[in-house]
This record gives sequence, C-alpha cells and structure tokens, in this order.
Amino acid sequence: MTKLRIAGGQVLRPDETVEEADVLVDSESGDIVAVGDPEEIPEGDETLDAEGGLVMPGLVNAHTHVAMTLLRGYADDKQLDAWLQEDIWPVEAEFTAEDVRAGTELGLLEMIRSGTTAFADMYFHVPEIVDAVEDAGLRARVGHGVVTVAKDDEEAREDLDTSIEVASEFDGAADGRVKTAFMPHSLTTVGEEYLREYVAEAREDGIPIHYHANETEDEVDPIVEEQGERPLEFARELNMTGDSDFVAHGVHVDGTEIDLLAEAGTGVVHCPASNMKLASGMAPVQKLLDAGVTVGLGTDGAASNNDLDMFDEMRDAAMVGKLAEEDASAVPAESVVRMATQGSAEAIGFDSGRIEAGANADIAVVDLESAHLTPHHDLVSHLAYAARGSDVRHTVCDGAVLMRDGEVLTMDAEAVRERAEERAAAAVERAE
Amino acid sequence: MTKLRIAGGQVLRPDETVEEADVLVDSESGDIVAVGDPEEIPEGDETLDAEGGLVMPGLVNAHTHVAMTLLRGYADDKQLDAWLQEDIWPVEAEFTAEDVRAGTELGLLEMIRSGTTAFADMYFHVPEIVDAVEDAGLRARVGHGVVTVAKDDEEAREDLDTSIEVASEFDGAADGRVKTAFMPHSLTTVGEEYLREYVAEAREDGIPIHYHANETEDEVDPIVEEQGERPLEFARELNMTGDSDFVAHGVHVDGTEIDLLAEAGTGVVHCPASNMKLASGMAPVQKLLDAGVTVGLGTDGAASNNDLDMFDEMRDAAMVGKLAEEDASAVPAESVVRMATQGSAEAIGFDSGRIEAGANADIAVVDLESAHLTPHHDLVSHLAYAARGSDVRHTVCDGAVLMRDGEVLTMDAEAVRERAEERAAAAVERAE
Repeated sequence: MTKLRIAGGQVLRPDETVEEADVLVDSESGDIVAVGDPEEIPEGDETLDAEGGLVMPGLVNAHTHVAMTLLRGYADDKQLDAWLQEDIWPVEAEFTAEDVRAGTELGLLEMIRSGTTAFADMYFHVPEIVDAVEDAGLRARVGHGVVTVAKDDEEAREDLDTSIEVASEFDGAADGRVKTAFMPHSLTTVGEEYLREYVAEAREDGIPIHYHANETEDEVDPIVEEQGERPLEFARELNMTGDSDFVAHGVHVDGTEIDLLAEAGTGVVHCPASNMKLASGMAPVQKLLDAGVTVGLGTDGAASNNDLDMFDEMRDAAMVGKLAEEDASAVPAESVVRMATQGSAEAIGFDSGRIEAGANADIAVVDLESAHLTPHHDLVSHLAYAARGSDVRHTVCDGAVLMRDGEVLTMDAEAVRERAEERAAAAVERAE
Repeated sequence: MTKLRIAGGQVLRPDETVEEADVLVDSESGDIVAVGDPEEIPEGDETLDAEGGLVMPGLVNAHTHVAMTLLRGYADDKQLDAWLQEDIWPVEAEFTAEDVRAGTELGLLEMIRSGTTAFADMYFHVPEIVDAVEDAGLRARVGHGVVTVAKDDEEAREDLDTSIEVASEFDGAADGRVKTAFMPHSLTTVGEEYLREYVAEAREDGIPIHYHANETEDEVDPIVEEQGERPLEFARELNMTGDSDFVAHGVHVDGTEIDLLAEAGTGVVHCPASNMKLASGMAPVQKLLDAGVTVGLGTDGAASNNDLDMFDEMRDAAMVGKLAEEDASAVPAESVVRMATQGSAEAIGFDSGRIEAGANADIAVVDLESAHLTPHHDLVSHLAYAARGSDVRHTVCDGAVLMRDGEVLTMDAEAVRERAEERAAAAVERAE
C-alpha cells in the first residue's frame, strides 16, 4: 500500500482533546490506519509536514447548494421569499449544465482551500456536479432538488423522476466518494400526493431523503393549519424521518419535534449564518444536542452566507447558540467542532469527521503559527472562535492530498475563478 | 513631499460606491491628497500595487482591550460576571507592564495583518501601549480603564488619577497618531461620587470620555432602581454624553436613550461578537442608525471574540442586526461597511475611515482574486459578508506602509508571537 504520513503536528482526537501525534494514511483504501506517538508510527511513502499545525478531521458541510457560489453577493439583505422569487430563482432558471459545473467547481475550490472535505449538495444538473466532485477529489452526498409548486403534473413528475433517477445512478460514483439522496425541497414546496408516492419509491430503493424543514415560521404555520400537526410530525407520517434521512435548518422546532428527531435518528443540519442573514431565526441547537439529536453544520448556499467557510459556520453556531439560550455556556467550542466534523458526517452518512484508525482519511491541517491564533491556551477554542478557512495548510480527502502548503493540486484555481466569473455575469445578464 | 501612489485597483468611496481609481498619499503629512482617474493622478515616489484589489479605508476598531490577546481562548463559554471574576481578572491582576506591551504588540500585529489602522483601547499600563503603537505605526485613542468598586478611597483615587494623567500626558503622542480619553469602566463599576468629581476634571481638560454602557441587563437594572432613570439618562446627568464621548455596547438601550444619544452626538460602539459570545443580547443597531446616532464597530477584547478581525465584526453586525429586527433587510452590507470605517472614526474622533482627499491616509488594500470573493457582483457585499482579515494585501496608516504584500514591515512578527506566547503562559501560571 502507498502510505501518507502526516507528521510533526498536534492532532484533534474524536473526544475533542489534542495530543502530539502522527497520522498514517493508506492512500489506496483512503483510510486512516494509525494515529499515535511519532516514534511508533511507521515511515510513509509520502509525508505532509504538520509542524506548527493542528491535524483535524476535514470539515463536513452538511447542507449547501454549491453552485450558488455564482450568486455570491448578487442579492443580499432581503427577506427569504422576495429574495428567492425576485433575485435567485430568475437567475437560476438561466443556469445551464455548464454554468452549474462552473459554480460547483468554484465552490469545491473554496472548500478545499478552507479544509472542507465532504458535503451534502442539493441542486440540479447533478451529472455535472458528480463529474466536478470526482475530478476535484472531494466526498459528497448529492441530489437533485425538487420543487412541484407552480408546476403542472408532467413537469412535477419529471422533476421527481430526475431526483430518484440521479440518486440511483450516481450512488457510489467516484470510487465511492459520491453518495446520493432523494431531495424534495421542503414539505411546503412539494405537494403531499407526490411526497407520498415518491418517498415510497425512495424507501424501496434504500435512498436517504434530505429536505429543508422548519426554516421559517412562514413554512411551519401552513402545515400546522392544514395538517393539524407540526411539520416534523407530518414528515414522520410521510415516512421522511428515517435514521439515514437529514433535514436542513430546523429553526422553528418545538419540544415534540425535538423528541421525535432524537427518537427517529434523523439528523438536523444547523445553518446559523443563513438563518441569521435571512432573519429566519435562531435554532434551539443546545436543546437539540441535549435531546441527543444528531446535529451537523452547513453553510447553506453561498448566496445566503456568503461563503462556504466552515470555520465561520462554527463560530456563528457557537455565537447564535448562546443568544438563543440567553446563556453564554450554551453551544460551547467543543460542541461546534463536533457538529462540524462527527455530527455532520453522521448526519449525511459518511464515516468521516474523526481522526481515528479505520475512519476515512479526510483531514485538514490548520496552521497555528499566526497572530490571531496566538497564544495556544486552547486549540479547540481557536478552531471554534478564531481560526478561519485561510489558516488551512493542507487538505486530504480519501487519502489523497488535494491541497499542499496552500496550493490546490486537483484544480486550476485561476481557470476555475475566471470561468465562474464569466458564467455568473452571463447568467445574470440573461435573467435581467 | 514624498508621495505614495496606490495604483491599479478599485476604490471604495465614502458613499459606498466602488470605482476604478488611483490614490495619491502625502507620506509626510499622512494625508490622502488625490483620488481619481489613474491618467490624472501624478506619479508617486513609491507605488503600492492594488491591481485585482479593492482600496478601502483602513478599518477602525472603536472599542477593544488590545492586550487581552494574551487571554485569547483562555476561558470561553461562560457568563460575563463569572468569566471576569473567575478567569479574566485573576490573570489580568498578574499582568506586568511588559506583559501588556507584549499582548498589545500581538494585537497590533493582528490588526495590521487584517487591515485595521486605528482603534480605541481601554486598558492599563498605558505608557507601554503608547510606545507599542508608536513603533507599530497605527493610530489609537488610548486610555486607562478605571474600576473603583471593591477598592478603598486611596486605591480608587489612584486609579482615577492615573486615567486623567495618562490622558493628559499622551494626547498627541506618536506624531499625533495617539489621542486619549478618560475611561471609567462603566456606570456601575465606578462610584457616582468619583464620576461626578473626575468627569468635571476631564471636561476641564477637554478630554473625551469612553465607557461601557448598557451592555447587559444586570448592569441596567440596578441603575434604573437606584437612580429612577435609564443608565444613559443618568450618564447625561453626570455630563458623560458629550459629542466627543463614546460608549461601548449599548445593547439594552430604550427609545428614550436612543433619542438622547442622537441628540447629544455621543457615539455608540457596537460589539456584536462579544455581545453574542457573552450572551449579552442584541443591540438595536438599525434603530440607532435610523435615529441618526453615530454607530461604530468594535471587536471588544480578544478574550470575548476571539479575534480582532474587523471583517468578522462587519459580518456579525449585519447578521445579528437582522435577527434583532427579525428583518433580513436591516443592517445591510453598506451600513456595516460604513460603521466599520466612517462610523467608527467619527465615534472615536479621527479624520479617517474614508478614501477622500484631505482625510488621513489610513488605507487597506483587499485582494479580490480568491475563490471566496468570486464572482464580483457586488464588492461592498463581499466586504460585509465574504472577506476576511487574511484577504488584506497592504496596510497603510498615516501615509506609511505598515504591511506590503502580506509582510508586516514595522514589527518582527515571529518575535512578537513568541514573546506573547511566553508571557501569556507565565501570567496564567502565576494566577493559577
């Protein structure tokens, strides 16, 4: 086997402690094979220098719409509904498969640079997304997002069929780095009759389901009114709360729904930046954690964030988690680091998010030798509160080095940026 | 005169528009002398390359305790009172003048790296702070923070005398880059009798006053109970709401106080990260802006943030401003950029924060050629939501280049980090 040794650094272990250790990776299987005392770890065929750095699990962005990087900064400071209908959807309607590929590549570049090694993506033109992910070397759960409102039956079924089809077709693609899900947009944007029918199909195919839930009050109220129950009770009834399913946002969930999620094993992907930027509200994250719900962390699309930097997201999660509880001890540093690594990985169903023999060799090395990460009282605190994506020195996914010393090896960064810039401008021009 | 030309970039103008322009600086007077069409701007003796970059005013951190960088990550996720009493104050009590100098230098290094050119600092061992600021080349309003609670009269007066004395002594130091203020910690931590006496003295000497106000409800309630009026009404009565005075936080202010601040011209320094991290609450920033209050932006100390990155602070301000109003259009990108530049400069009394002939030549050049700042739909949005301190390429203060192409010219970065690491560890060891 070809062995990669990550040497000379400190290592963040799965219990959020930090120790001096080397990490040995089998680049062929893509797994971590040993973590421990540098004296006892065998030599590697290749070495990554982690001196002065912290070796941590690659971050897992558990809910995003990657190609929306093309719309970064296109429209800000508007309410969710108006923002979608007046700004975002009209431009997205213009996106070609090649546009989506360009936007996806821009997002993948940003993720590699900022230490994210896996993500869950809900978008469209999935074949191009899978292709981009395969080339860039990341790990992803992908799916075609379905909206049926304002569509006739034929259009609606076409969208639903696509979502089921791509989920079947691409599961296991890119040497197993790509997995899939059936992705109805939400309980209010996909008709109940379609959900009943297609969820049954997804269940038959063994495909997980990922959707937006309880993001805004405007989305909760109509369900409560029509169904006489809370949205996630309705989702349970629709068989959409399995233990491999995961919902995004979960801002406006009540105690019954929190218990339901904990019992069902359905993951919740907290998206604090998006929830703040769109004024959706503050998710009860500490309560979700206390109840034993699997909580991951996601950036949502770059248009409502406006970056894909999971360090920002950890900081935001810790910050808004305290505001939500009016308690500065809520959602502490350890919790957000865990959410962004193990929590996210578990929510979206990857064996990543921890530096441990047997786990996926998905790793980021953070450079600690900078003013804003000095002194080193507590490195977990630094990850949560002071580090940023630009502190990442190396990124490894599935045992392969994607970025070494700040240089991305699997993509031509300049070409990616140029193409995205051009395609974004052209799509906006067509839409306006 | 020696002329510095910042050439080839786009320039953020005082009305938050962006245009292609060059900027000419007189390095001797420290002022901007011209901004305009590159064809019409005369050659400089020295040139800073701004190609692919955005030339913006140096950011102004209007409330911080710089040397608290030594306590970055030392204690997190605790309530304000317990955090101060159990963790922060015991270590601060061990800080020597040289410790404060080391912590200040670490903070100045971080500020230069992240494009901050001016700040207001409330701390102690002011002579060492002034010395560090002079050497690093930044601009600062400094003061000795006074606390009289739990002190006998002699100790209290010693503290107050120091605050008045250093304010007189250092005003105009470092070729005018250093200005000062009288800095009683807050209306609840300095006794009323002392405030009455020393505020009169400060007024006589023409020294502005800077203090924490309305940060937590615990600080508001006792004043309302004892004085029968809101804290800022009490402050007005104490003659502490002049138009050169500025308060930090202003989280729990009511409509009467907002009107009072607007009328008085007293600045408010919004510290969103600290207010979230300590669960102090959400300041009504949009209401303050609507009322015409001068609102600046500050990081507070690094122990409650945990960095001094004003880009983070802009993002936080926009995010939490929307949550506070439950309105995604509140506190838009333009507002937070203005707060971090002109707003802060006006609050703390510097002629900085805008790229305009006649203003201080305090400038940051942000590199736009990165994945997370692509595409370029709206550069002001990028400053607010997607840029981070590490995107700053050059930093200029008072016409002098402090950082060129990411290399800090006025400090030995490695020595600064090492000294801070050692002194932080030693102070913690003494305290524990």
